[in-house]
Amino acid sequence: MEQMKNIMDIDTVSLDDANSAVVIIDQTKLPETIEIISLKTAQEIWDAIYLLRVRGAPAIGVAAGYGIYVLAKGIETEDYDTFYAEFKKQKDYLNSSRPTAVNLSWALNRMEQVVLNNKDKSVAEIKALLKAESIEIQDEDIRVCKAIGEYGLTLVKPGDGILTHCNAGKLATSKYGTATAPIYLGQEKGYNFRVFADETRPLLQGARLTAFELHSSGVDVTLICDNMSAMVMKNGWVDAVFVGCDRVAANGDAANKIGTSVVAAVAKQYGVPVYICAPTSTIDMNTPTGAEIEIEQRKAEEVTEMWYKERMAPRGVKVFNPAFDVTDHELIAGIVTEFGIARAPYTESLKEIFAKKESSK
Amino acid sequence: MEQMKNIMDIDTVSLDDANSAVVIIDQTKLPETIEIISLKTAQEIWDAIYLLRVRGAPAIGVAAGYGIYVLAKGIETEDYDTFYAEFKKQKDYLNSSRPTAVNLSWALNRMEQVVLNNKDKSVAEIKALLKAESIEIQDEDIRVCKAIGEYGLTLVKPGDGILTHCNAGKLATSKYGTATAPIYLGQEKGYNFRVFADETRPLLQGARLTAFELHSSGVDVTLICDNMSAMVMKNGWVDAVFVGCDRVAANGDAANKIGTSVVAAVAKQYGVPVYICAPTSTIDMNTPTGAEIEIEQRKAEEVTEMWYKERMAPRGVKVFNPAFDVTDHELIAGIVTEFGIARAPYTESLKEIFAKKESSK
Repeated sequence: MEQMKNIMDIDTVSLDDANSAVVIIDQTKLPETIEIISLKTAQEIWDAIYLLRVRGAPAIGVAAGYGIYVLAKGIETEDYDTFYAEFKKQKDYLNSSRPTAVNLSWALNRMEQVVLNNKDKSVAEIKALLKAESIEIQDEDIRVCKAIGEYGLTLVKPGDGILTHCNAGKLATSKYGTATAPIYLGQEKGYNFRVFADETRPLLQGARLTAFELHSSGVDVTLICDNMSAMVMKNGWVDAVFVGCDRVAANGDAANKIGTSVVAAVAKQYGVPVYICAPTSTIDMNTPTGAEIEIEQRKAEEVTEMWYKERMAPRGVKVFNPAFDVTDHELIAGIVTEFGIARAPYTESLKEIFAKKESSK
Repeated sequence: MEQMKNIMDIDTVSLDDANSAVVIIDQTKLPETIEIISLKTAQEIWDAIYLLRVRGAPAIGVAAGYGIYVLAKGIETEDYDTFYAEFKKQKDYLNSSRPTAVNLSWALNRMEQVVLNNKDKSVAEIKALLKAESIEIQDEDIRVCKAIGEYGLTLVKPGDGILTHCNAGKLATSKYGTATAPIYLGQEKGYNFRVFADETRPLLQGARLTAFELHSSGVDVTLICDNMSAMVMKNGWVDAVFVGCDRVAANGDAANKIGTSVVAAVAKQYGVPVYICAPTSTIDMNTPTGAEIEIEQRKAEEVTEMWYKERMAPRGVKVFNPAFDVTDHELIAGIVTEFGIARAPYTESLKEIFAKKESSK
């Protein structure tokens, strides 16, 4: 059955009208089923983050913000100390759901700061401020993604072919995504991009999420295996590569989902520019180069047992399964941020981006 | 359970002692089960080829040679014309099992030629000649693979890291394989190579077959997803890439399993030489360049439904699923044949290889 709903009409994460639940698309059910679920209890919110029902750094941050607000709203006391003690307990609990997700602790700390900075106010006032802050976290995410999309859109023209890897899409954020932001903004303007989505082994975020959200949004998307990028580029079908990133070093080296640096090497061979879409929150000027970025190794079964436990490799064989790789800055044509596009030499241009960010405050 | 049998002790294809059956490893059961099956009837042989129980161009040729011999042996007549009519019927039937497999018709035609060239002999004598010819087809395959392995071995040194893609291994031939021949010959000499096997989406021949046969043979093999090659090479773990090929053009462009040209582009970026292991039977001097090689497109379900029918992509999404790609000759450091190693410019060196082949007759 053809998927009929347009995913752009559904929020990845939102707060329900009664302010009593975080509402999300259950991403573990995609692409076969679009299931919207309401998370009301601490346990439900924790499970949703732990089980990747909501995933993608920005989306996790937004879900955590709304989540801790919903839980705080339910704390029945007028006493600040009692309120804060319970808030802290809930915050620490949510924070344990995915310890390595930076945006999770970032959003929760930001919410805690609201409580700490407003000791003089009533609990009811603090609850109102928490609501405003959680909404602001989401609004900021949307503004950042939109700005990245607008800058990214200046790098391509109507009818262009765009290749992307993994999911740095709407489903990883509140709206637009990062790598997909130029695609969605172009779609709104009738640019008719032809998009190629790498399936992205081993966990297939490209097939399950990116191909799904673009297809559902009416974008002309073609799913390929990761090892087909050279043929697609050699055929002249790709004018630009847009990918997201997990962390950018001060010299422009960019850590992103495993396989990004394969795409970048292939793109170099065929003269296709590679753009990293990076909110400034992912640029870490304290990391000098990509060599200092630690790469998480994941379990072998992700590779040896295909989706849902069919074993596809000999038992006992060694497996190398890094979650990310680092793309050398020399392979990157530009780093697209919400404050503009950084170009080589990145050690200079990224500083300028941060100067712009500072002066915008 | 750890796999204990050494696959090198089991023939991919053989003739049983009674000359009444083709004996093969059922490759559809790998890597979980090593099942040896005997094919006695025309239907059993046809099914085995059609269902990919035996696969890989050289192995299919050998199975077809033994298969038509076993069937011919069972034809009960002393009359040549009756014998040839029945032989031809069986031959045409076997030939219909995989029409695009060049080695299938090549081996069957070669066997038919034995019948046609010996009209003056008794049917019993012709059957003996057919047996000898089918054994010679296999012996030739083994000699060719071994020679490729010996030339290939001169390109690496003990302890080297070798990356391979897809399965151009023992399971695709009678023994040694083509791309794996230097690895197995090195193993016999105690070279202790560290091998990386690309899983090779969509059909996972690298995971299911190459990782299996190397692991079972005691070779130090590490399975990776296709998109991890850049990280492995950047880490300095790969000294050479050895891959097989389906067809080499006169200018050295080489068609091989999809993804080979991705490996080649990545290898160029990290300064790793790429060697194509090619029996001269796969070099087509009548094809000027890779641009003239038609690329088979396969069905979308190979990409959208993972191994064994778990759907992993949105329904209705477009899929590009080429079976092969062409690696530009400029990315190839050498083409390793049974008559030596061709180097750029290939238009010259491949001619020299064929001159050597001609003078060896």
